[in-house]
Amino acid sequence: MEKIGFVGLGIMGKPMALNLLKAGFVVVAYNRTKEKVEAIVKAGGEAASSPKEVAENSDIIITIVSDTPDVKDVILGKNGVDAGVKEGSVVIDMSTISPSVTKNIAEKLKAKNVEMLDAPVSGGDVGAINGTLSIMVGGNLETLNRCRPIFEAMGKSITHCGTNGMGQTTKLCNQILVSVTNMAVGEAILFAQKSGLDAHTMVEATKGGAAGSWQLSNLGPKMVDNDFAPGFMIDLQQKDLRLVIEAADELHLPLPALTYVHQLYKSNQANGEGKEGTQALYKSICKLA
Amino acid sequence: MEKIGFVGLGIMGKPMALNLLKAGFVVVAYNRTKEKVEAIVKAGGEAASSPKEVAENSDIIITIVSDTPDVKDVILGKNGVDAGVKEGSVVIDMSTISPSVTKNIAEKLKAKNVEMLDAPVSGGDVGAINGTLSIMVGGNLETLNRCRPIFEAMGKSITHCGTNGMGQTTKLCNQILVSVTNMAVGEAILFAQKSGLDAHTMVEATKGGAAGSWQLSNLGPKMVDNDFAPGFMIDLQQKDLRLVIEAADELHLPLPALTYVHQLYKSNQANGEGKEGTQALYKSICKLA
Repeated sequence: MEKIGFVGLGIMGKPMALNLLKAGFVVVAYNRTKEKVEAIVKAGGEAASSPKEVAENSDIIITIVSDTPDVKDVILGKNGVDAGVKEGSVVIDMSTISPSVTKNIAEKLKAKNVEMLDAPVSGGDVGAINGTLSIMVGGNLETLNRCRPIFEAMGKSITHCGTNGMGQTTKLCNQILVSVTNMAVGEAILFAQKSGLDAHTMVEATKGGAAGSWQLSNLGPKMVDNDFAPGFMIDLQQKDLRLVIEAADELHLPLPALTYVHQLYKSNQANGEGKEGTQALYKSICKLA
Repeated sequence: MEKIGFVGLGIMGKPMALNLLKAGFVVVAYNRTKEKVEAIVKAGGEAASSPKEVAENSDIIITIVSDTPDVKDVILGKNGVDAGVKEGSVVIDMSTISPSVTKNIAEKLKAKNVEMLDAPVSGGDVGAINGTLSIMVGGNLETLNRCRPIFEAMGKSITHCGTNGMGQTTKLCNQILVSVTNMAVGEAILFAQKSGLDAHTMVEATKGGAAGSWQLSNLGPKMVDNDFAPGFMIDLQQKDLRLVIEAADELHLPLPALTYVHQLYKSNQANGEGKEGTQALYKSICKLA
């Protein structure tokens, strides 16, 4: 069995690494904050002192960190994966980052005979804990198939989206859909409430038809009840929407609705609501009225 | 069994009236264009020469016509329902029109001891033919219950939304949700295609999660395939969005996303695409890039 390296043990990474151990994989892990590695060692994993050391001691290296510069740093930086990686290894980046930077990193690794997959996820920390993530994979299909048992230990839906970067592009499409659909729900609920219509009744009456969405069924009732506890936090969504807008800029592509939602979330952040759930978009929509 | 009057035998009204006959109701029908009444007479219904005559000869009068002025005309105008309606009758308006005008008409009828229900529908002509419409009802619950067997002959989901006008308000919320969610799908598909990502793959990868919606699953693939045949026509949607914006204006309520979609549909109309399906919004989104 191939040995797995794991870089990044945050809210998502830690439960994902634990699921790999549970599935019987050998895992060697690194995290910037050392304490987080202890949980992996306790569960039977090994600790490494740098991404380089992780790469030297494994065949498949998974990275899942915060943002584009972090991925560049742990893969291409000093003591990065690139400094220790063996020919024939695979690097899987499961962070959500720039599609174009992903392509660049993949090309650099390819020059060393190292394949890369971009494999961002959706499903949140609950999906990470339960091993039910949706995994959107860019890169060679052969490489994906080699890594499939690893993905299956962490997720329930694994989609091959295309070449390097296409996993990231799919994830960004997901975030466009999530955000603008959330806006649809917020405007409909505001219109209902200002009209004196019971908004729960409205959600029930509309969710089964052409108006229906996951956002309406799941976040609509929370908006109505002023329940803004985070499922997915606005601050994290904003990072992803920034990636969407940066990628769209590279393509000279206007995305007016998505950009507008990004601006309204900025209003949430300016009002100290960045740690609330994305349904708090409703508060910014209400402020317009 | 109460006798049903039926005013308006268009794409929606005709199959709805036929379903009432099929369910065993006595139906007396009027339509501005006389030929359309013949189909009802052939199916066992009676013809009337005006909305007034319809009202004189029935206990429950259904109206389903195009727009707010049409409803005012057939109910309150010369030879309208109001001129012939008997005390204790019920007027059910199943058109999609202004919630505030609906309230006014209901008050005028109430002065004559006539109850009104607003009961706009969703589900399109297919739902009308199959008797599977969703019916959103505003008005007294007692009156709704009196009319329930009639609604059950035409629809599969009947929701009591509140007082007079709240059925219309719910329908307008439905149209906000449908339109802005459609925008979400269009921007995601454009981003996918400009990025070189196969957009069908993107739809498949995202539709099962938090990004999922009826619009994504049903209209997304049509956008990708440039299939703009109408399920629901832009010209009709524009009438409904105008009603949303008029009602929002009465409430001094900004709805920036909905208004933006309305503008993009105007671009479709300006380009001769008003008879295409609402998924042709995608063409206007593409023109921005």
